[in-house]
Amino acid sequence: MEGFNLKHSSILHILLFLLFSCFGVNSKYIAYNTSQGIVGDKINVHLVPHSHDDVGWLKTVDQYYFGGNNSIRGACVQNVLDSVIQALLDDKNRKFIYVEMAFFQRWWRQQSPALKKKVKELVNSGQLEFINGGMCMHDEATPHYIDLIDQTTMGHLFIKDAFGQTPRVGWQIDPFGHSAVQAYLLGAELGFDSLYFARIDYQDRAKRKDDKTLEVIWRGSSSLGSSSQIFTGIFPRHYDPPDGFTFEINDVSPPIQDDVLLFDYNVKERVNDFVAAALAQANGTRTNHLMWAMGTDFRYQYAVSWFRQMDKFIHYVNMDGRVNALYSTPSIYTDAKYAADEKWPVKTGDFFPYADQENAYWTGYFTSRPAFKGYVRMMSSYYLAARQLEYFVGRSGSGPNTDVLGDALALAQHHDAVSGTERQHVAADYALRISMGYAKAEEVVVSSLASLTESRLNSSHDSLSTKLQQCPLLNISYCPPSESLLSNGKSFVVIVYNPLGWKREEVVRIPVSFKEVIVQDHDGREIVSQLLPLTNFSLNTRNYHVRAYLGVSPGNTPSYWLAFSAFVPPLGFSTYIISRANKTDASVTMSAISRPEGGSNNIVEIGQGNLKLHYSAQEGKLVHYSNSRNLVRTSAEQTYSYYSGYEGFDRVNQASGAYVFRPNNTYTIKPEGQVPLTVMRGPVVDEIHQQINAWIYQVTRVYKGTEHAEVEYNIGPIPVDDKVGKEITAKISTALKTNKTFYTDSNGRDFIRRVRDYREDWDLQVNQPIAGNYYPINLGIYAKDEKMELSVLVDRAVGGASLVDGQIELMLHRRLLYDDARGVGEVLNETVCVLKDCKGLMVNGMFYIKIDPLGEGAKWRRTFGQEIYSPLLLAFAEQDENNWLSSHVPTFSAVDSSYSLPKNIAVVTLQELDSGIVLLRLAHLYETGEDKDYSVMSSVELKKLFTGKKMTKVVEMNLSGNQERAEMEKKRLVWKVEGSTAETKITRGGPIDPKKLVVELAPMEIRTFFISVNNLKMFGS
Amino acid sequence: MEGFNLKHSSILHILLFLLFSCFGVNSKYIAYNTSQGIVGDKINVHLVPHSHDDVGWLKTVDQYYFGGNNSIRGACVQNVLDSVIQALLDDKNRKFIYVEMAFFQRWWRQQSPALKKKVKELVNSGQLEFINGGMCMHDEATPHYIDLIDQTTMGHLFIKDAFGQTPRVGWQIDPFGHSAVQAYLLGAELGFDSLYFARIDYQDRAKRKDDKTLEVIWRGSSSLGSSSQIFTGIFPRHYDPPDGFTFEINDVSPPIQDDVLLFDYNVKERVNDFVAAALAQANGTRTNHLMWAMGTDFRYQYAVSWFRQMDKFIHYVNMDGRVNALYSTPSIYTDAKYAADEKWPVKTGDFFPYADQENAYWTGYFTSRPAFKGYVRMMSSYYLAARQLEYFVGRSGSGPNTDVLGDALALAQHHDAVSGTERQHVAADYALRISMGYAKAEEVVVSSLASLTESRLNSSHDSLSTKLQQCPLLNISYCPPSESLLSNGKSFVVIVYNPLGWKREEVVRIPVSFKEVIVQDHDGREIVSQLLPLTNFSLNTRNYHVRAYLGVSPGNTPSYWLAFSAFVPPLGFSTYIISRANKTDASVTMSAISRPEGGSNNIVEIGQGNLKLHYSAQEGKLVHYSNSRNLVRTSAEQTYSYYSGYEGFDRVNQASGAYVFRPNNTYTIKPEGQVPLTVMRGPVVDEIHQQINAWIYQVTRVYKGTEHAEVEYNIGPIPVDDKVGKEITAKISTALKTNKTFYTDSNGRDFIRRVRDYREDWDLQVNQPIAGNYYPINLGIYAKDEKMELSVLVDRAVGGASLVDGQIELMLHRRLLYDDARGVGEVLNETVCVLKDCKGLMVNGMFYIKIDPLGEGAKWRRTFGQEIYSPLLLAFAEQDENNWLSSHVPTFSAVDSSYSLPKNIAVVTLQELDSGIVLLRLAHLYETGEDKDYSVMSSVELKKLFTGKKMTKVVEMNLSGNQERAEMEKKRLVWKVEGSTAETKITRGGPIDPKKLVVELAPMEIRTFFISVNNLKMFGS
Repeated sequence: MEGFNLKHSSILHILLFLLFSCFGVNSKYIAYNTSQGIVGDKINVHLVPHSHDDVGWLKTVDQYYFGGNNSIRGACVQNVLDSVIQALLDDKNRKFIYVEMAFFQRWWRQQSPALKKKVKELVNSGQLEFINGGMCMHDEATPHYIDLIDQTTMGHLFIKDAFGQTPRVGWQIDPFGHSAVQAYLLGAELGFDSLYFARIDYQDRAKRKDDKTLEVIWRGSSSLGSSSQIFTGIFPRHYDPPDGFTFEINDVSPPIQDDVLLFDYNVKERVNDFVAAALAQANGTRTNHLMWAMGTDFRYQYAVSWFRQMDKFIHYVNMDGRVNALYSTPSIYTDAKYAADEKWPVKTGDFFPYADQENAYWTGYFTSRPAFKGYVRMMSSYYLAARQLEYFVGRSGSGPNTDVLGDALALAQHHDAVSGTERQHVAADYALRISMGYAKAEEVVVSSLASLTESRLNSSHDSLSTKLQQCPLLNISYCPPSESLLSNGKSFVVIVYNPLGWKREEVVRIPVSFKEVIVQDHDGREIVSQLLPLTNFSLNTRNYHVRAYLGVSPGNTPSYWLAFSAFVPPLGFSTYIISRANKTDASVTMSAISRPEGGSNNIVEIGQGNLKLHYSAQEGKLVHYSNSRNLVRTSAEQTYSYYSGYEGFDRVNQASGAYVFRPNNTYTIKPEGQVPLTVMRGPVVDEIHQQINAWIYQVTRVYKGTEHAEVEYNIGPIPVDDKVGKEITAKISTALKTNKTFYTDSNGRDFIRRVRDYREDWDLQVNQPIAGNYYPINLGIYAKDEKMELSVLVDRAVGGASLVDGQIELMLHRRLLYDDARGVGEVLNETVCVLKDCKGLMVNGMFYIKIDPLGEGAKWRRTFGQEIYSPLLLAFAEQDENNWLSSHVPTFSAVDSSYSLPKNIAVVTLQELDSGIVLLRLAHLYETGEDKDYSVMSSVELKKLFTGKKMTKVVEMNLSGNQERAEMEKKRLVWKVEGSTAETKITRGGPIDPKKLVVELAPMEIRTFFISVNNLKMFGS
Repeated sequence: MEGFNLKHSSILHILLFLLFSCFGVNSKYIAYNTSQGIVGDKINVHLVPHSHDDVGWLKTVDQYYFGGNNSIRGACVQNVLDSVIQALLDDKNRKFIYVEMAFFQRWWRQQSPALKKKVKELVNSGQLEFINGGMCMHDEATPHYIDLIDQTTMGHLFIKDAFGQTPRVGWQIDPFGHSAVQAYLLGAELGFDSLYFARIDYQDRAKRKDDKTLEVIWRGSSSLGSSSQIFTGIFPRHYDPPDGFTFEINDVSPPIQDDVLLFDYNVKERVNDFVAAALAQANGTRTNHLMWAMGTDFRYQYAVSWFRQMDKFIHYVNMDGRVNALYSTPSIYTDAKYAADEKWPVKTGDFFPYADQENAYWTGYFTSRPAFKGYVRMMSSYYLAARQLEYFVGRSGSGPNTDVLGDALALAQHHDAVSGTERQHVAADYALRISMGYAKAEEVVVSSLASLTESRLNSSHDSLSTKLQQCPLLNISYCPPSESLLSNGKSFVVIVYNPLGWKREEVVRIPVSFKEVIVQDHDGREIVSQLLPLTNFSLNTRNYHVRAYLGVSPGNTPSYWLAFSAFVPPLGFSTYIISRANKTDASVTMSAISRPEGGSNNIVEIGQGNLKLHYSAQEGKLVHYSNSRNLVRTSAEQTYSYYSGYEGFDRVNQASGAYVFRPNNTYTIKPEGQVPLTVMRGPVVDEIHQQINAWIYQVTRVYKGTEHAEVEYNIGPIPVDDKVGKEITAKISTALKTNKTFYTDSNGRDFIRRVRDYREDWDLQVNQPIAGNYYPINLGIYAKDEKMELSVLVDRAVGGASLVDGQIELMLHRRLLYDDARGVGEVLNETVCVLKDCKGLMVNGMFYIKIDPLGEGAKWRRTFGQEIYSPLLLAFAEQDENNWLSSHVPTFSAVDSSYSLPKNIAVVTLQELDSGIVLLRLAHLYETGEDKDYSVMSSVELKKLFTGKKMTKVVEMNLSGNQERAEMEKKRLVWKVEGSTAETKITRGGPIDPKKLVVELAPMEIRTFFISVNNLKMFGS
């Protein structure tokens, strides 16, 4: 039959009816009314157009920017920004927020002056608003707070400089859990009025939806309390629009078809969908304001595809009138919430750990890529020191500066960077950027130090005769200047720089090739030193990794570590001369080496000072800890275990992977066979070497002058021949009765109380008793009973827990064979290669153990913790004619010689900005009540800190330096909270007297200043 | 180890080198130089930005337009046009071509006046160029030439009207083979200077690349020869860019990264890629001009993603200098080719069939969706007639008009519409549009006819008292007015309209419920009529399909077909009155019915006139054909067969599917058991009914006054319970010695010689001896020997072949179970449903057989062929008081009563345009040398054609009416060809004398006129 002629007559009739009865008009140009604002008595749906642009994840940041490597994932931020700007110019009612300054900066510098002008107008009119405004949307579990501040400052100052704007809102929509430091420090202290994010524990979210507590006032710091609180909005689901409202090119949500001459006209149906989604959300929200995050990862590649639909929704939904739809931003939304004059529940603590479903605790990434995490931390402190040295001699306008390292470190704070959840090639990209930044910063450091050592001669910056070298691979005993120099009979000089504000005495260790050495201080006094033979393990590790990382075979092979105590002034350096002596002259002490037999009661004791560690020679392990000064004594063990990773391919069979920690079983690692302990003893340090198994080698050190144990571990290659992924933990076990309770730091700052199998905010259903009790650790973890505190400090971000009373465990390394189905699509299986020959990655790192009488642990955790973060910086020079001291400044301090910062205050930033202004950031290191001596208001005398300089202007700024503190306080929204508002009195340092220039800091306070200094270049050329 | 610090030191060094040695500059805004034009002495790479936008395929045209149904395929033409226009406005050197006016029109009417103004400027400046310019990129195998002209005219007049532009270039890049009519009629006769496409036989392409004959001068018509030739460029591969140069959002081609501050800088590498691709193509191309089609299906959704990269390529490639890159269009490219003053090879014939690889002949779509193909053809002729009637009474400004049908038919010519290669829901959409258009056109037709019948009364258009009805389902015996009216004793009136320019006598058949009928002409004379009982087959088919297509059960059941001969004037109508008579009065003749026994020698003869068909009663089939007038006599068989479709899932195991015909085996369909022939004989027509098998029913008719056999077939539901797809053919076999040679028409126009297993242009490697010899048929197919011609004409597009000498086969229906892996992604398995109960689609159609003495076949093929295309149009009215003739005009002709067009000239368009101007298109129906009487220059007297009207202006236009013919001829490029330019003298009609207004037409000539007529509304209100 003529199959089609009237086949669809029923549809035909409907359509004819529609065409001629309802509309009766031709389609034509429709000017959509997009100007709608808030309507008081309706449900207001704030449409917030946004694109979530990871600065690296599956692709590198640059590939994401310009659309390279699209075979991995189609994404091009250049498209986003190009097309969004155009769409905003097309309709002045449209709005957009942009978050990641690393991308925006790349884009900005490529634009024409004409377009830049237009963009500035868009920013001024509020169409384009910068939100969050750091270089990246940083992770909240694994970065150090100094890095968070630095990367945010960098973004905020860019925005301030280019647009004169200060972001008002935190927008941490994607990070996998949320830290207290984010809320108060990277929130309230920036002047943010609100913070928004999507990812919290699924149980927590369910409860909050039920009782309408998705929006809260969050007080992140118990020390700063309501003085540093922030309105916090948690999204009801994720950071994308409700189902059916996504409009990226090729998305499947039905677009509004409102041309009456086309088929599939659907205006009424789509308006109904919109209203239904709004009412559903309103049901779980206080006030009549809802936010729809209109966008998700790398969306708006063609922005019109979104704006065209939003234009239509706003037009037709408002014609319908049941709810009110408007273009908005989180700022407008925040102001609307504030205007509602509602009382909000108070939230304290943080949002860790994060689980998005049963058995899926995102606690693996606390440790993922531990070597990279260590590298980032090491470079963070190097960047801090390098900026100090750069400032001392004056920033170079043309030569190398510290910016490349700063940029690289900023990127590395991204929530798929230091978190360890990026693909391997992306991790390599971050590392490459850091290494390039390091190379630049090293130039700054050595030339600054050279300049400072030569300043007596008034030598010019350009013609420095002093050649200094550094040894970034010192951790694998690779330091060409120290290894080689003595071979030709020449002495060498070690410049030891201290980036902290207080004096330090600390043991320096460098590899040397000869045992006939003399160490002299800058007065020519020979000082005590000790030689420790390099073990075969160290030499093998060194030779392999130098080939792996530098592509060359190391030349000389050093034979010894040379250890001696260096004394260094605050923000300054000392000089030590290492010379080759005649055999008989050598004053150095060779370590006494023993390999105790494993007799049943043979106990080995190490420690030349107060701390004594006792080892069972038979078991080859620590058994007892004692301190002769404070009489702490306890049995103590320190062992290794591993979790076998759960295997699976999807969310149903959840595997352990880059994000998620899901152990299958726990195995204690016992020494294989009877490997004797190797003990080295001497006047500077005692060491115990333990080969735990074929792939764990550990050295425990007790320095004469200190009361903690330093544990250097080497873990890897983790074997996976058995097809089982493994996650390696170190456990420190004591007899302390810690009652399920322990404390972990928030980004290296406030310690937060953790209780095993318990959450403060809801009634926890336990389904992962191990993974669900893991927390991120950046500074340390401790637990206590009525008598003692057991503290463990770390040199990088790791995951940790106390799963058994008296015990603390750290997860130090992970090697896994399954992807955990959260998007990275790659197995976390790091390797290290010499040419094509690859093996599992080895990780080398440190942790530090101390047991104190109850109430005395904070001093060590805080003050020594800061020293871990900021190790002494070493530079080496050849001494030509034994005349170094006659021609160089031997010691230097930037501060008044009579002055030193109190040990509860750190200079966390001292940096000359491009403008010449000096950015000084001071941090009180202690919380309220933590320590009887140090948890007090303390002060810094700027005149002594800036000795010899004239400060013409000192302005206190907000944390990121993009506005004056006073102005920020004035603008700050004051939120009402539910329940009692009684709070322990919060103290903060007072305003600084412009004459006295003394800065007060209360516990946990960080204060930021812009200081104009007149004779800025006094130290340098 | 600190795994990352210097891991990439070698890369680092390279990068540092690059950063500081090579560039030494910061990245910044780069103003790309995109202004490059042609450079004479270089290889010029013409970058032609384009988007190939199917007006329906996987999605409907509207879904493609607004981005609906993206779950099927992400595509949104609105995005393309929005973003392209913006990109063109951003840089005046950028260019874009747009092809499909169906989309552009949709977009255009939605734009603001301000934007429309800008777009006009883009068009005027040549940045945006309309290419091809029809409503769609039509198929070339299955549409009728009149439909091709109409859809192109519609697009071209839109462009002319909105922009004042005339497209210069044919751009048939995607159709699956290319017709001669495309080259000369829809090419040269439009004024196109060139034609470009991608798809030709893979063997042909290989040869053309080898001998640099991808660009040719194509002479599509042997009658019009060089007067209608066109420069034709075949792409070396497909209509997309070379590999690695596709830049849609998310495409994986590496974008140029030229920001020195980002990683992955690749300018040199990408320039090298570009140059290499250009040189490779230059190797197979004459002159130093190459075209790159920069785009493909539905690309440029975000146009900047392409233009940004092309900007950079033009900038950097031209800086490099080895080749020259420029923004271009096919027009610019064509002019460059022309300017090269080269001689080009001549191509004749066409490019059918198309195979894209071994065993993949795209000859299945010649028949795919045969019911839809029939519907399109039926509506094509209806549209032609309806426009005539609309013109006669004057186009309505507000009421219904023929435009909706015109639009729907234009879409249906798309190369994934009437071709049958669209998805099922899309086919339904096309059909729905046509049925809506039909509904409108029917209103025009019945009101025009009513107006014309009432014109004697000077009744106004608005108050027509005459109610006419039509019967679009007449083919399934469904015609409520004729079936029911006699039941109440009332007579009814049949208005018989003839859309052709010559008088016709033709048998009309209508279903009636009573056998007591009288048929009278408008003079009241009773005329000969015949009743043929409706068979059970017809009744079952009728009842099922009325329910399926109208959703209602038919009421009355008619019992008979009433047949009588109607005489109708040119472009006019006659009136017949059907009355119920007393039993005794009934002058109608009841057919004599017999069911001959199958005795061994029982031969049944039918035919009341010259033609006699002889059937073997035993075998139940045709055995002999004879014509007593011209003494043609031959044994003849007519049988059915089927091919089993090849099964497969990919291009390696190529299946038979919507596009590709790949038979596995051939099976002859023999009558099941001994089904006797049913013979009906009478004074008007003899019929033989054959139930070939359970799903093929055939009626063969021989009308008294004609000398051909009319075969009505009903095929389906094709059974597929055996899991075998089937493709059904009818075969007509004779004793003619046709020597492998046969002739098939080109879009219903020129016949092209085909030789089995042979191609004129290359040495054919035969791998599909059946599918590779199939050709598209729209008018007919014939073969001849030294004495006779066997001709078969068709009522719709089908595939056909002559695989055995003396035999012609037509593929009439296809039902397949595998997708053929060419993109449609759906199985060609059409069904018809009553509610949810579906069965395989039945197809009802006609073909016509005639055998003539050699040299005499063309008359029938051409003149009767035109009558097949334009059947008589019937309208029915109730006769109230037996006073119809007294109150109505009984007969009408638009032409002078003494005048009639010669039988070699058809009015292919007679239409009042929106402007009021009349568009007249006259076509000579014969080729040079085809017929001794009709293959001659003929003429039309416009004054007699437009009798009673004053023509104030007659302007000859090009084929699509967008420019004056003279102007077109003046602009036309004159190409040089290789070899002898000797050619049989080409004749064309001369210019018309403005006084005489006589139009001459030479063989195959089509001439188009715009005529201003003064008393346009004389017939109507």
